[in-house]
Amino acid sequence: LEPEVLEFPLETLNGPITPNELFFVRNHYPAPVLDAESWGLTIEGLVERPTRFDLKDLKRMPTVSLQATLECAGNGRAGLDPPVPGVQWACGAVSNAVWSGVPVRHVLETVGLDRSAVEIVFEGADRGLVHASPKPCGKVPFARSLPLEAALSDGPILAYEMNGEPLPTAHGAPVRLIVPGWYAVASVKWLVRMIAVDQPFRGFYQTTDYTTWEARDGSPQMVTIGPMPVKSVIARPVGGAKFQTGETVEVSGTAWAGLEEVVGVEVSADGGSTWNDAVLIGDHVPFAWRHWSFEWQVQGPTGMRMLLARATDSAGRVQPMERDWNHGTYVIDHSLPVTVMVGRSG
Amino acid sequence: LEPEVLEFPLETLNGPITPNELFFVRNHYPAPVLDAESWGLTIEGLVERPTRFDLKDLKRMPTVSLQATLECAGNGRAGLDPPVPGVQWACGAVSNAVWSGVPVRHVLETVGLDRSAVEIVFEGADRGLVHASPKPCGKVPFARSLPLEAALSDGPILAYEMNGEPLPTAHGAPVRLIVPGWYAVASVKWLVRMIAVDQPFRGFYQTTDYTTWEARDGSPQMVTIGPMPVKSVIARPVGGAKFQTGETVEVSGTAWAGLEEVVGVEVSADGGSTWNDAVLIGDHVPFAWRHWSFEWQVQGPTGMRMLLARATDSAGRVQPMERDWNHGTYVIDHSLPVTVMVGRSG
Repeated sequence: LEPEVLEFPLETLNGPITPNELFFVRNHYPAPVLDAESWGLTIEGLVERPTRFDLKDLKRMPTVSLQATLECAGNGRAGLDPPVPGVQWACGAVSNAVWSGVPVRHVLETVGLDRSAVEIVFEGADRGLVHASPKPCGKVPFARSLPLEAALSDGPILAYEMNGEPLPTAHGAPVRLIVPGWYAVASVKWLVRMIAVDQPFRGFYQTTDYTTWEARDGSPQMVTIGPMPVKSVIARPVGGAKFQTGETVEVSGTAWAGLEEVVGVEVSADGGSTWNDAVLIGDHVPFAWRHWSFEWQVQGPTGMRMLLARATDSAGRVQPMERDWNHGTYVIDHSLPVTVMVGRSG
Repeated sequence: LEPEVLEFPLETLNGPITPNELFFVRNHYPAPVLDAESWGLTIEGLVERPTRFDLKDLKRMPTVSLQATLECAGNGRAGLDPPVPGVQWACGAVSNAVWSGVPVRHVLETVGLDRSAVEIVFEGADRGLVHASPKPCGKVPFARSLPLEAALSDGPILAYEMNGEPLPTAHGAPVRLIVPGWYAVASVKWLVRMIAVDQPFRGFYQTTDYTTWEARDGSPQMVTIGPMPVKSVIARPVGGAKFQTGETVEVSGTAWAGLEEVVGVEVSADGGSTWNDAVLIGDHVPFAWRHWSFEWQVQGPTGMRMLLARATDSAGRVQPMERDWNHGTYVIDHSLPVTVMVGRSG
């Protein structure tokens, strides 16, 4: 399939790290195959020393390894009723890996930022036509920007390794931007150009696609998608599973909260009427999802039962129970039920 | 027709002022009928003294009268081949009037701008649904912003009179923003709210509709429509008119150049092979169109003949001969031919 789209099978969720070959893929154009030897990253615009770095240059710089959970901004779209256009992801357009590379801040300090710069544009080598009116002449590169504050923060790196291996082509080889805590759209693959600019970037994937509506100053505005809100998903059991009263069922899944920390997950086995604390597994790792588990003692009426999970983060935000339709086709962060069947035991 | 759309019959072009009842109309939603007595304009956001002015308040302030030619950003769209979506304007979505009202600068000085303000959002009372994906919940007001520099410049006024009469409903009664030199979309009708903001406004009519593509930093970006470029149109003769060799035909029309001055208009009667200077009529009036005329001595081969006009402005810009397709469905500023028939005399 070109461009490549691949969902992580959430029901196989196991340890915290998603293997490279199972990590979800959402590309917008056919993946460019770049030669690591001849590849270069141009940094230009409002910088003191416009520079082209090759891969060897980057590998000589300080390296950081960090976990980052990436989620597609349309993840969970298939669960929306009424449906909305776009790739019909179930819940598996989310994965977690260890990324290794150079902090964006270090690279920007190396070239020297002009005082007038307000954003950094990151441009990939992938390009193609867009579904926009008016249409542009020619192809548009996939490109996104970060406000200066985010670009210079502790998170973003220029990654050339994924789980200890060289970055695979489908994930942006040889070098990809990783913006921990942000929806995956910010983590531009096949990075070839960074531009320091003195006005907000107005690219298609910044101002038209990958935007949601937000009431600002009392009127709806189209805002670009940024950090991920708090969210949990149920990995197991899967929808349609059958259980009997008296049985003990492990309900498990994962949760993430963008730049914040997941501090709790609750599970409901009665469609949200009552809630029980799940156990958070392992330790908190910044920017990474946190798996959770709950032992469900199957009781009560037989028939269809709605399992729900909701997470709370360190900023006190609680995952919402209802869809915010101003999010349009993106940011599906509310609790999506998994419906199972409960029969009488014996 | 709701919303109202009305083209000025360009072939009737006469003096510099378009009568109110012939002035072109392009509304996006049904026109709100606002009561002038109870009407108020709220100025809020990053201002020292948020204030609500009524019409009497405005009329007590210093008044300016100025001519401003307004052109719809889609004017001339019917002349495009291949066609593009949108209202199929011929060339008459342009008109000129005397507008009277209070300078925006005076009003902003009265409320006191905060140092952090970078734009002023102007919001009309007209609102409705938009054709966007994702869709917003509920209705969107028609709203546009001006960068602070433009808002504080000599041009923009809050107009309550049009050609010496109270502003008609179709033109935004009781008060409309007029931004001289800019495409008409900036001149928000039925003005009810101004908001000083510290980040660029991201409304639908600012970032999605009424945008064109522009290569910035080497990649296409969607930029909002601003001042009008230099442009001339032929009012008479109309397409399909028949003339004879030896005859003298007055070719006449008008030209405008946004914030600049029209310094010359040339006419070609042979499809752009040779050009002749037209006579500019009257004096230059800032922000207003300038009519012109050329005495065409009909000579040469018989058959179909393409008349063209092209204008030059005080910044040295010459009206282009070809469509810039990056303009998409807007900014149709190239010379559009008028095809006439030349027959043998006698």
